[in-house]
Amino acid sequence: MSTPVRTATLPAHAPTTSFLHDIIAPDSIAVIGASSDPTKRGYTAVLGLVTGGYQGDIYPVNPRLTEILGVPAVASLSDIEGPVDLALICTPASTLVNILKECGQKGVKGAIILAAGFRETGEQGERLEAEVLRVAQENGVRIIGPNTSGMFNLHKNVNLLSLEAVRPGGIGIVSQSGNMLLALAMEAEHNGFIGFSTYVGPGNQTDVGFNDYLEYLGEDPNTDVAVLYVEGFRDGRALLEVARKVTPKKPVVIYKSGATEVGKKSAASHTGALAGSYEMTVDVLRQHGVTVVSQSDQILPVAEALSLLYPAKSKRIAIVADGGGQATIAADRIVEAGLELAELSETTRERLAGILLPQASLANPVDVAGTSDTNPEVLAQCIEIISQDKAVDAVILIGMFGGYHIRFDQSLLSNEIRTAAAMIEFKTRNQKPLVVHSIYAERRPSSLHLLRKAGIPVHASIENAVAILRALSDRGSFLKQLESPHENSTVESSSPAIEALFNQAQQENRDLLEFEARDVLRSHGINVAKEVVVRSVEELEEKAAVFGGQPLVMKVMSKDILHKSDAGGVKLNLRGPEALKAAWQEINDNARQYDANADVHGVLLAPMVKPGVEVIIGVVQDPVFGPVMMFGLGGIFVEVLQDVAFRAIPLSSHDAWSMLDQLNASQILDGVRGQAAVDKQALVDLMLNVATMAESHPQIAEIDLNPVALYEDGYAILDARIIVDRPAPSADS
Amino acid sequence: MSTPVRTATLPAHAPTTSFLHDIIAPDSIAVIGASSDPTKRGYTAVLGLVTGGYQGDIYPVNPRLTEILGVPAVASLSDIEGPVDLALICTPASTLVNILKECGQKGVKGAIILAAGFRETGEQGERLEAEVLRVAQENGVRIIGPNTSGMFNLHKNVNLLSLEAVRPGGIGIVSQSGNMLLALAMEAEHNGFIGFSTYVGPGNQTDVGFNDYLEYLGEDPNTDVAVLYVEGFRDGRALLEVARKVTPKKPVVIYKSGATEVGKKSAASHTGALAGSYEMTVDVLRQHGVTVVSQSDQILPVAEALSLLYPAKSKRIAIVADGGGQATIAADRIVEAGLELAELSETTRERLAGILLPQASLANPVDVAGTSDTNPEVLAQCIEIISQDKAVDAVILIGMFGGYHIRFDQSLLSNEIRTAAAMIEFKTRNQKPLVVHSIYAERRPSSLHLLRKAGIPVHASIENAVAILRALSDRGSFLKQLESPHENSTVESSSPAIEALFNQAQQENRDLLEFEARDVLRSHGINVAKEVVVRSVEELEEKAAVFGGQPLVMKVMSKDILHKSDAGGVKLNLRGPEALKAAWQEINDNARQYDANADVHGVLLAPMVKPGVEVIIGVVQDPVFGPVMMFGLGGIFVEVLQDVAFRAIPLSSHDAWSMLDQLNASQILDGVRGQAAVDKQALVDLMLNVATMAESHPQIAEIDLNPVALYEDGYAILDARIIVDRPAPSADS
Repeated sequence: MSTPVRTATLPAHAPTTSFLHDIIAPDSIAVIGASSDPTKRGYTAVLGLVTGGYQGDIYPVNPRLTEILGVPAVASLSDIEGPVDLALICTPASTLVNILKECGQKGVKGAIILAAGFRETGEQGERLEAEVLRVAQENGVRIIGPNTSGMFNLHKNVNLLSLEAVRPGGIGIVSQSGNMLLALAMEAEHNGFIGFSTYVGPGNQTDVGFNDYLEYLGEDPNTDVAVLYVEGFRDGRALLEVARKVTPKKPVVIYKSGATEVGKKSAASHTGALAGSYEMTVDVLRQHGVTVVSQSDQILPVAEALSLLYPAKSKRIAIVADGGGQATIAADRIVEAGLELAELSETTRERLAGILLPQASLANPVDVAGTSDTNPEVLAQCIEIISQDKAVDAVILIGMFGGYHIRFDQSLLSNEIRTAAAMIEFKTRNQKPLVVHSIYAERRPSSLHLLRKAGIPVHASIENAVAILRALSDRGSFLKQLESPHENSTVESSSPAIEALFNQAQQENRDLLEFEARDVLRSHGINVAKEVVVRSVEELEEKAAVFGGQPLVMKVMSKDILHKSDAGGVKLNLRGPEALKAAWQEINDNARQYDANADVHGVLLAPMVKPGVEVIIGVVQDPVFGPVMMFGLGGIFVEVLQDVAFRAIPLSSHDAWSMLDQLNASQILDGVRGQAAVDKQALVDLMLNVATMAESHPQIAEIDLNPVALYEDGYAILDARIIVDRPAPSADS
Repeated sequence: MSTPVRTATLPAHAPTTSFLHDIIAPDSIAVIGASSDPTKRGYTAVLGLVTGGYQGDIYPVNPRLTEILGVPAVASLSDIEGPVDLALICTPASTLVNILKECGQKGVKGAIILAAGFRETGEQGERLEAEVLRVAQENGVRIIGPNTSGMFNLHKNVNLLSLEAVRPGGIGIVSQSGNMLLALAMEAEHNGFIGFSTYVGPGNQTDVGFNDYLEYLGEDPNTDVAVLYVEGFRDGRALLEVARKVTPKKPVVIYKSGATEVGKKSAASHTGALAGSYEMTVDVLRQHGVTVVSQSDQILPVAEALSLLYPAKSKRIAIVADGGGQATIAADRIVEAGLELAELSETTRERLAGILLPQASLANPVDVAGTSDTNPEVLAQCIEIISQDKAVDAVILIGMFGGYHIRFDQSLLSNEIRTAAAMIEFKTRNQKPLVVHSIYAERRPSSLHLLRKAGIPVHASIENAVAILRALSDRGSFLKQLESPHENSTVESSSPAIEALFNQAQQENRDLLEFEARDVLRSHGINVAKEVVVRSVEELEEKAAVFGGQPLVMKVMSKDILHKSDAGGVKLNLRGPEALKAAWQEINDNARQYDANADVHGVLLAPMVKPGVEVIIGVVQDPVFGPVMMFGLGGIFVEVLQDVAFRAIPLSSHDAWSMLDQLNASQILDGVRGQAAVDKQALVDLMLNVATMAESHPQIAEIDLNPVALYEDGYAILDARIIVDRPAPSADS
């Protein structure tokens, strides 16, 4: 194992605070339901502890046995004299309530429950699971599982899985699929030099959830990188909060399954329709510094590289290659990944020219064009020279390295080994990451063996090598932006008048009417055009007078009409008393036709706003992640292309700016087809104010500002909807 | 080697027509510049022929040697008695002219020129290359290269590369990177059972190009799949024509590098700006049945699978898995790839229930949930049952197969081998493809070894396994659509009047004016609203009268003003003589301001058309692929999102329909936000007519119909531009 890279600002051995410490690194373990049958977990677990060299106390619990594998058995927990930190419960679901009570009496800190037969099986199982949780909580026992594949902690020689020997190392894994652990372990074994610290299967997450495990791995000095395979979070909000603390110290890699799951819920707003998606999950995880991997075969390469290499300061990559094809492919992948090809300085090129043949290409990709065929060592020299260039953040070697002695001349073997040694020496004194691609990787020549052993990733797949570079670059950017001050949205207290609006709406079991929503927006410093509410046709002309001769928009105000346009409840571009009266009549007729029983509060009158670039800003209370903001371009962009960005609230100004950049069509904000750029600063301020508003009023279930027109200077909100959190859904929602 | 899958409609051993046959499968080879120095190609080539067991005649040519490796050398070509099919020329660039003359005198059919130093080195090299080509043509010698890594034909024991032994098999490769061949050979070696028929490095393609090589591979009975690594085509049009003939018979896999190359040309039209892109290349290759692979690490897996398995009839995939995580990942990747999860019939589920444990999940993904832990053979039974379901086009096995005896009990080894045998037997009598994922793939257990040997692909990467399924499904769809009759755009003869328009424009060194373009469109049955051309303000009112009271659009007509709107040359929504006169004045003023010397022909008057869904239809003469049509949604979709599709002309109705479906925003054509669907049939007819028009008039350099407004019924063309091919570009283009 090479020295792990720590970016920690905290000391590496800071005092642990996670309650899981005593459970995942226990000094004593009871195996309840221990067995002498070698096919049972009650046997293989004891075997794993004994053969693994566990130094703590082992207590097989089984009234019918005296010993297992030479370890004395006890009839029950109460027969154990010393303390018991952890109980591995191998007995069926039906036995758990009593066993957990005994665990409580014994002072057992945590129990791993292997049994299935709970909520995953239906209602009866769900009741049993709730009962198990209740009993565990009453008795002060924390639960891993149930329905878990188990746990190991290789640095404490705790191996409760019946897995073959897995190499100890710096990768900590929490996986909702035991087979996923197996796959990563197989891949690591094939790779040869990467190992694992801890594995936990969270199972049903009845008690302990991903957030708790991540907190533990964040503190665990043996874990250099945390890897989570997640099918579903129990408490996504808590996970984000833990991630916020852990990611500045160590990398967190998450693969979230269900990328193509179809959302099943109906939604009152556009934001609601798109929230809860895989894309939202990815956005909010990344917001908190998590490295989200979207291909399962890149989980281990990325985790390995993040644990072994320093992050790249930025995204400027230099390619050193010994031939054309692969360098071109690498360049394509680098650009596709959003990285850049570094522009090498004149000095660097001159230095390269000094050691390479005349036909070498000195621009990036640097092609040594045969220079290395007789002397591979020149590659190490190139890497050294290039990495000294300030315009380079990471270097990738592409081509045949490791195989020169196979391809050209057996005598090059020693040269290649020397070259590998030079690269390794380079790694010890240089923080710029080096990634090696070799078409001979699977041949496992000794030079590549040495590189791997020293913690330099070697891959046969250019695509995987570039995925690593991207992860290193993303991590570098994340750490860098942490250094600059963050202007966060902050919770402001609300006024009694605004609170009264929400209370009344809740009492009347309705959402805010638009004029109320506009008042709430104003109270948070958001710029909303003046409007008047008109309750009768008689007061129409007088009330409209306040707008002078401006063309007006008229909208129906009714708690029963959520989608005003669909109900024919919006009339545009009205001028003069006659037009207003006609519109009043039409809107009221349409409303009655739409819903004969609709309670029409009147209409809202406001000035028409000039056209601009239309965007949508929404907030939704996501059941997993809590309040989340959505931002996108309006109309077709959100409805057809779903070109939107999500961030959990609280929102920092960095978050808001990054949402603008994330859109595929972000160019539109900069002005296209002869239009001027929009006022991005005003947009960001608006987003921060909306975030603050959402934080200030827990009664808000959803906010939908759709559309907001953006101008060269400022913005106008064309429609504002605030959905109020209500005990039971009303009939029309 | 397993039996290759042939979808050929031609007999497998149809007579070959490619001139390359005698060159790539030669009966006699001269090595010019043969050498006794083991580091020289002139030595290793002879070594490769001798040790490879080449049965033809070998003639080392070197006046200073009597023999090489026991093969008698000759002083010059003329000293050889028998015929010489192929000359491998190992001497430097400067010697070539004379050598090629000698080759011609000797009747050598083809020469492989290894030397570099031609167009890739600059102007002098370019002249030498032209000279070499001229001499070769004069002397009737075809050239492979120059600047090539060489060639092998393992079924004829011709190995002119100094490569280690590569396994013979069904993959034929043409690669502009020798290292790419090396990488694929390494990967195949690691994989163990896939082999190669022929490799050619086309080098500079001075004479023989990709199209010629593909034609040869298409005919070669030893080649089951053709793989091309392409940096650039010499004659893309010819390649497409060959692909059209080959792909119905055997799969063609192309990796095209330069995916992120930035287009460097300026363009007169939107179509011109987007043509020539990587995306265009991919579209036109796919149009011709080519499997385009976009990740370099999927080239071999995809080529292997296409050569070993039958294509999938459609895209409905069934997953058989032994656990949750990987099955979920596979399902995600399958849906992302545009494939579908097959819906299993009631019968299938009942049959599965009969052999699986009660906790098994019988919906797709089928999760055997532990049934296979003690009896892996149940997996083969599941595959058998599922593949009999008519709703299933392909099956993927996901999980631990091959490793049960490692994970659970060594005694399962024989069961696993039996299971593999059952799967292999299944493959021999079932045309539905089976792909196997195993987390134990890299452990190479004997059961997986058997599967690979029998031609069932086994992969540790779920992503690669799904890439294979996608390629098999795409190929199946391609072959299927070939069966239905294709309504192709057909070349119609042009009328003398229309030809006169083009002639005049060419004589005047200008593009067509809009009214001329509209006439050309009309002559091809395209629906264009009536327009009048007005040459003086005096005739304005009278000429406008023909439109009755309709609101009109007025556009400037000038050969010097290409972008009419930018020049203030378009006025909309004009009613009545006063408005027309004012517009006339303004347009003429603007035109003068835009270009004081602009030759203004007058204005065009046409009725305003009602708004619709705006699309762009363009045609460009691509320098590589010839006439290519572009289709996309208008405005921001084409300019910002570049959401467009390309097809080479001639265009079939299938091509046109597939362009509609390909757009990310294709949903808009079906009607969104309350709008009706557009008249897709009219759109497709329009596209076919435009394609015919482009074919009918070789004088057309570009067509840009932008925008075309689509309606529930029919369409309207708002602006039409036809750029005429001219000897030299005019100043304003």
